[in-house]
Amino acid sequence: MTEQQPIYRGKAKSIFRSDNPDELIVSFRDDITAFDGAKKDELTDKGVYNATVSAYLFGRLEEKGIATHFVRMEDERTMIVRPLTMIPVEVIVRNAAAGSLVRNYPFEEGQRLDPPVIVLDYKDDARHDPMINEEIIVALGLMTAEEIDAVKTIALQVNDLLRAEFGRIGLDLVDFKLEFGRHGDRILLGDEISMDSMRLWDMETHASMDKDVYRFDKGDVMATYATVAERLTGA
Amino acid sequence: MTEQQPIYRGKAKSIFRSDNPDELIVSFRDDITAFDGAKKDELTDKGVYNATVSAYLFGRLEEKGIATHFVRMEDERTMIVRPLTMIPVEVIVRNAAAGSLVRNYPFEEGQRLDPPVIVLDYKDDARHDPMINEEIIVALGLMTAEEIDAVKTIALQVNDLLRAEFGRIGLDLVDFKLEFGRHGDRILLGDEISMDSMRLWDMETHASMDKDVYRFDKGDVMATYATVAERLTGA
Ligand SMILES: Nc1ncnc2c1ncn2[C@@H]1O[C@H](COP(=O)(O)OP(=O)(O)O)[C@@H](O)[C@H]1O
Ligand SMILES: Nc1ncnc2c1ncn2[C@@H]1O[C@H](COP(=O)(O)OP(=O)(O)O)[C@@H](O)[C@H]1O
Ligand SMILES: [Mg+2]
Ligand SMILES: [Mg+2]
Repeated sequence: MTEQQPIYRGKAKSIFRSDNPDELIVSFRDDITAFDGAKKDELTDKGVYNATVSAYLFGRLEEKGIATHFVRMEDERTMIVRPLTMIPVEVIVRNAAAGSLVRNYPFEEGQRLDPPVIVLDYKDDARHDPMINEEIIVALGLMTAEEIDAVKTIALQVNDLLRAEFGRIGLDLVDFKLEFGRHGDRILLGDEISMDSMRLWDMETHASMDKDVYRFDKGDVMATYATVAERLTGA
Repeated sequence: MTEQQPIYRGKAKSIFRSDNPDELIVSFRDDITAFDGAKKDELTDKGVYNATVSAYLFGRLEEKGIATHFVRMEDERTMIVRPLTMIPVEVIVRNAAAGSLVRNYPFEEGQRLDPPVIVLDYKDDARHDPMINEEIIVALGLMTAEEIDAVKTIALQVNDLLRAEFGRIGLDLVDFKLEFGRHGDRILLGDEISMDSMRLWDMETHASMDKDVYRFDKGDVMATYATVAERLTGA
């Protein structure tokens, strides 16, 4: 099946059509990139770890009544999802300051954000995913004000669940990025929730347990991804 | 009086203490800068034109009940104002897409924005005035959510008055930037409203009548500033 041409090949995943028009096939590749693709590698089983964590978390979210694109796993790196018309807005939830928040504003690294801060970025690689605001989103016709409110509410619910899940395994959920898309007249949570799209810090040592290990050469990237996947899913 | 040392020397204005503790002296200098200070010049009477336009507009706003820091003019480039504890947030109102909005998002130059779009920037030269959002402003303790709402409401009222004023002299108010500050328990409109802080397009020719003439070498900068000041104030 993955011998056909993907209908989209992103930086880390490839999307294939399926025989069922209401399903798409997402293949989590082993490619890892950072800094707008300036840093790039292939790390064995990276796609498997991210697919496993994403599938587990989408499953937990569905159990809590949060609607996602997740349908089922086909194999350990292949996810069947509902086809979405993606909304090019990254919804980022932050429980502590890190990354661009520390670079752009006078926050201390790790400073707690309570209530969590939601940041919206316009997803466009060529423009380097600039930050966007609600009024610009409405002016561009990407979402209505009511849809933005709904999506932010879902993002905070996801945050509650993810914090509990990672807290259970001794990890502090610093921040994460969600993508949403339209399926008929509904907006569903799409894409992935993985070590590529979260910042996780060990609660004791504060060590990074996410893509920052790759970005900043902090250690063995795949050992880190494997640890998170195993601790989270108990596999 | 302006022989003393300024308590602050900005890119275009200098601030001096006054004998009255509830007044500051703002001297509009002839310095003009662009692109984070990378382009820099001194243009004779630039400070006078900006002071004249600012004073006129602050006066009109006060007449409409909008509270500003403006007290009176001391001479043609010297404004007496209430001392404010400035809030380092630039409040930008946009009636049409231009500048960073066109660079960062898929808008056409000149595309109308109705309702107007408000963008908030964190005023910090060293950080290149990054865009900020309401939740980050609250997290930094710069303003409460209620204060942000109040400031945005004032900004839209200012927009209505400025559009009418410039419409009267054949100019389209594309966008402008405001700064606010605290005076006791009130938030007042501060800083300046001038050709340095607005985009004005001739309604017929679409020619720039503002600092873009300087930024992009579009013509005689001071002839442009003089024209706006004279048409607006009838002087
Ligand atoms: N359910 C879905 N339907 C359609 N597209 C999706 C779905 N979920 C995610 N996508 C999109 O598929 C792509 C996933 O591949 P990825 O490698 O992450 O790409 P990118 O480099 O664009 O981030 C993303 O562009 C994402 O927005
Ligand atoms: N009423 C006021 N009280 C105190 N400071 C003010 C007041 N109005 C404006 N300011 C501040 O004074 C400075 C004006 O000088 P300017 O040359 O514009 O400086 P900058 O380069 O910082 O923009 C700005 O930093 C502005 O925020
Ligand atoms: Mg992606
Ligand atoms: Mg200034």
